[in-house]
Amino acid sequence: MYRAPLEDMRFVIDEVLRVGETLGSLPRFEELGVGEELTAALLDEGGKLAGEVLGPLRRVGDMNPARCEDQKVHISPGYAEALQQLAQGGWFGISADAEFGGQGLPELYGTAASEMWNGADMAFALAPFLSSGAALAIASHASDELKAIYLEKLHTGEWTGTMNLTESGAGSDLGVMKTRAVPNGDHYLISGQKIYITWGDHDAVDNIVHLVLAKLPDAPEGSSGISLFLVPKFLVNADGSLGERNDVYPVSTEHKLGIHGSPTCVMAFGDDGGAVGYLVGEENRGLTCMFTMMNEARLKVGLQGLGASEGAYQQALAYAKERVQGGVPIIEHPDVKRMLLTMKALNEAMRALAYSEAVTMDLAHYGPESDRVASQARIDLMIPVIKGWMTEVGVELTSLGVQVHGGMGYVEETGAAQYLRDVRITPIYEGTNGIQAADLVGRKLGRDGGTAMGIVIEEIRADARTYIDAGGELAIVGKALESAAALHASSTEAILQMLAHTPEAARAAAFDYMMQTGYLFGGWQLARGAFVAQAALTAGDDNDFYARKVATATFYAQSILPRCEGYAGAVANAGGALQDYPVGWL
Amino acid sequence: MYRAPLEDMRFVIDEVLRVGETLGSLPRFEELGVGEELTAALLDEGGKLAGEVLGPLRRVGDMNPARCEDQKVHISPGYAEALQQLAQGGWFGISADAEFGGQGLPELYGTAASEMWNGADMAFALAPFLSSGAALAIASHASDELKAIYLEKLHTGEWTGTMNLTESGAGSDLGVMKTRAVPNGDHYLISGQKIYITWGDHDAVDNIVHLVLAKLPDAPEGSSGISLFLVPKFLVNADGSLGERNDVYPVSTEHKLGIHGSPTCVMAFGDDGGAVGYLVGEENRGLTCMFTMMNEARLKVGLQGLGASEGAYQQALAYAKERVQGGVPIIEHPDVKRMLLTMKALNEAMRALAYSEAVTMDLAHYGPESDRVASQARIDLMIPVIKGWMTEVGVELTSLGVQVHGGMGYVEETGAAQYLRDVRITPIYEGTNGIQAADLVGRKLGRDGGTAMGIVIEEIRADARTYIDAGGELAIVGKALESAAALHASSTEAILQMLAHTPEAARAAAFDYMMQTGYLFGGWQLARGAFVAQAALTAGDDNDFYARKVATATFYAQSILPRCEGYAGAVANAGGALQDYPVGWL
Repeated sequence: MYRAPLEDMRFVIDEVLRVGETLGSLPRFEELGVGEELTAALLDEGGKLAGEVLGPLRRVGDMNPARCEDQKVHISPGYAEALQQLAQGGWFGISADAEFGGQGLPELYGTAASEMWNGADMAFALAPFLSSGAALAIASHASDELKAIYLEKLHTGEWTGTMNLTESGAGSDLGVMKTRAVPNGDHYLISGQKIYITWGDHDAVDNIVHLVLAKLPDAPEGSSGISLFLVPKFLVNADGSLGERNDVYPVSTEHKLGIHGSPTCVMAFGDDGGAVGYLVGEENRGLTCMFTMMNEARLKVGLQGLGASEGAYQQALAYAKERVQGGVPIIEHPDVKRMLLTMKALNEAMRALAYSEAVTMDLAHYGPESDRVASQARIDLMIPVIKGWMTEVGVELTSLGVQVHGGMGYVEETGAAQYLRDVRITPIYEGTNGIQAADLVGRKLGRDGGTAMGIVIEEIRADARTYIDAGGELAIVGKALESAAALHASSTEAILQMLAHTPEAARAAAFDYMMQTGYLFGGWQLARGAFVAQAALTAGDDNDFYARKVATATFYAQSILPRCEGYAGAVANAGGALQDYPVGWL
Repeated sequence: MYRAPLEDMRFVIDEVLRVGETLGSLPRFEELGVGEELTAALLDEGGKLAGEVLGPLRRVGDMNPARCEDQKVHISPGYAEALQQLAQGGWFGISADAEFGGQGLPELYGTAASEMWNGADMAFALAPFLSSGAALAIASHASDELKAIYLEKLHTGEWTGTMNLTESGAGSDLGVMKTRAVPNGDHYLISGQKIYITWGDHDAVDNIVHLVLAKLPDAPEGSSGISLFLVPKFLVNADGSLGERNDVYPVSTEHKLGIHGSPTCVMAFGDDGGAVGYLVGEENRGLTCMFTMMNEARLKVGLQGLGASEGAYQQALAYAKERVQGGVPIIEHPDVKRMLLTMKALNEAMRALAYSEAVTMDLAHYGPESDRVASQARIDLMIPVIKGWMTEVGVELTSLGVQVHGGMGYVEETGAAQYLRDVRITPIYEGTNGIQAADLVGRKLGRDGGTAMGIVIEEIRADARTYIDAGGELAIVGKALESAAALHASSTEAILQMLAHTPEAARAAAFDYMMQTGYLFGGWQLARGAFVAQAALTAGDDNDFYARKVATATFYAQSILPRCEGYAGAVANAGGALQDYPVGWL
């Protein structure tokens, strides 16, 4: 059963990222007591909820999928009660503005919470994930009137939210959207069908706030003609009470590989005359509104990769300690140890990377004005790497979790395979990893000629020199990072050349470049932790925990970081046979 | 829907491996007309069966799993009829001795057939797979009397066979077996329970021949005290007719991640007094009997990796040609093309490697006496690589197949995810890939100090020089192979040093070494095909097919082969933090 890795989380938040110094002194957070005590209290409370309430639901939701009958979705047993507990704990609005019922805490804490919910039950965790996305869009773009009616209910978890983008025949390509919005007095009438709507309908809360992309009658062609609308399941009266049922209904739920507890709905809008919708932001600016919350959403999908992998690791570890083969627990077998250590090291690297960039996100929003642009440039660069790399690694690690179990891993009752089935969606949704890679290369490198990337690589190089100077195991880590950073600089240079001369090759190289970047960034952030741990050890804190951090980072540097070479080779050669290969020959 | 890749298969069999010359002139095969005409006839017939009969069953078996009720397993709809057709075509005994109803054809043709059945429906393909394994054990070790009664029925597919090894609490560790065999006149009475018995019971044929490992009352401790027994579902009368129902029954079937059409049974022996069993081979030599068919079985599991990946590729390719995003079919997107070409190149590399080693297997059994020892040494070396690497690649490629489909890949109805679910068992069963890696390093390298491996690497180097001399794209391939071979020689040397000084480190390095070896061997065999194709092009055969072979091998050399560097780095460092990491710190 999942137990939130509180000690590891606290280490990153308090000791590596030093949340009190970094964020605690910012105006947004200074009166909230952001710092070690708050970290401890939040992790303790969240850990209990994840371990005791959500963890047991993971198998329940898998075996009793949400189901759609008579235009209503019935959620899996226990989910409604768990949502209530999450709401009562104030977790829905943890990072949201206090003005509208949020806690106003850093995204860093929201990130830690997300990791826990996803570690416990990814299907369930999608409910607060989607709600916070919808709330953020409303907070950023809706009128004060809409905010007054809808925002607090989303932040308190009394209602949940959804995002309605995809249509049949238009997955990642929003330009060909068919859903229509016709002005009708103070609102619009929405009609059309959306697919893949996560938590699109359910009976766990009283109302659902749908955010819907649709086209106005006179909208320009393509993606610049899309507007964003708020479409509540039940209309809301002036006094805040629920009014009429709105014309939006679930048609069916998908039969999916995993996340069975999360109802993935086909949603019908306006089959009975038109669903009442309210414009969010300006007309035809809907995609821009969506983009403002994309970084938060993609960070959270990265955390799904981590959460599922951490859950898979814990279960595989417990199994490997217990299961005896050849007279010893299989954890003693060198290959099983290799698998478990690979899982552990990559989990810690993902956590270090994601948390560190949650801080960057907080700084971009609430840091000193003068630094915000730089922080935003950095987070923009990091997000596709976090989403893409962490979800790819999530698939690998949950598959390793199955492997550690041997034959038992293939039998569904053990629950090991569910981690793999659940996490397999993450490289696909919220922008496929191909799209993440194209974003990293085409936009994030392309638009500034690699400047933001160059800044990060210089930081890595400077840190690597510090580690080399520190000697011992840290020097091993530092040297490995130094050469991986140099290799990465070559790959970046190669990509920039391709962008200039053979952009097709750059797009073909993008995925491998994203993976190379992820392994480097993860190893770097893991090394930062090892440096902190080594300092504690040197200061006389003779603690296994710190020694473990140094050993784990050393393992990563020696056994995982070499993967960068494979990716770099593929990047360097992308302009060769890959680019030249005629599509018709496939 | 799956269509056997006949042209690619024929190319490897006839043009690269030149089956007529290599095998057609051997005494075993010379009267059978082994050569291009026979290849064409067999592939044509097998391809029709795979495409028209088995392919449509894949989703049927997945959605209507075999189920156990009242000690009987009811097989999925359509499976019984398909088994009959396979039997009527003589496919069950394709490589078996003609004396007992087999076709007596090369294992190479059996390998091609296996690829087709697995490409069409892996769950179904397990039936002929297990039957041929049981038949081979009987042919190799049973008395003439048992052979006379059972062998022909297995070879003709009238009956099917099973292998009963695993017990609860003893997966890969057969030494602690609890199943007992007590002498009782001309037979033994078997009692005990076995788990994970593939196609353990079903109602598609009249009788099932179980091969069962069990211990005699006075057997020595551990794995040297295990004997092999033949336990028929129905006893067989002297005239060959079926007699009494034997005391062996299915208890339940497992609820698995995939291969739902294949009943994975818990089997109870002797609950009602003892199941009648007949000794196969000598007492206490049961494991030795099993080892004789291990190479064939592991080759076939490798082919499951290929079959599933080829099926996944075909489906992803069809989807990518059809699905339009951004105004073009997604196959035009460079990242989708990268995924598809990765699938295609690795599939062709796996096929080239597996088929080439099927020939080695034929040579080890039926080749000139003077060469058999060397052929056997080579196949012993190759098998763990084929089983381990091809099943790992199978998981990667079927997952890529899901990714190409985007959100549709996550919806079960498309059938894309089933390839991943099905193939995920292959790194686990028939010896986990950890065991394959340990076998490769501990036995196959360790016992001859790397001699057999050195011979292969020298062959690769010689071939690489030939390709370099050929110039053009082949020179690119040759250079990449040459440096990958040199890198591999370093890894081998490192492993041999570890075996001598830190065997624990060698075991920790084994998996990465196996993967490095697989990518190299696969690339080499693919290059052999490219060389043949280039020769045809040079000779004026201006054919897209040949040009494609050269381009695919070039892509592999440029974009896939670099992965060897990542694995080599991990191998080189396995004696570092990985070995030193205390298990208690996990």
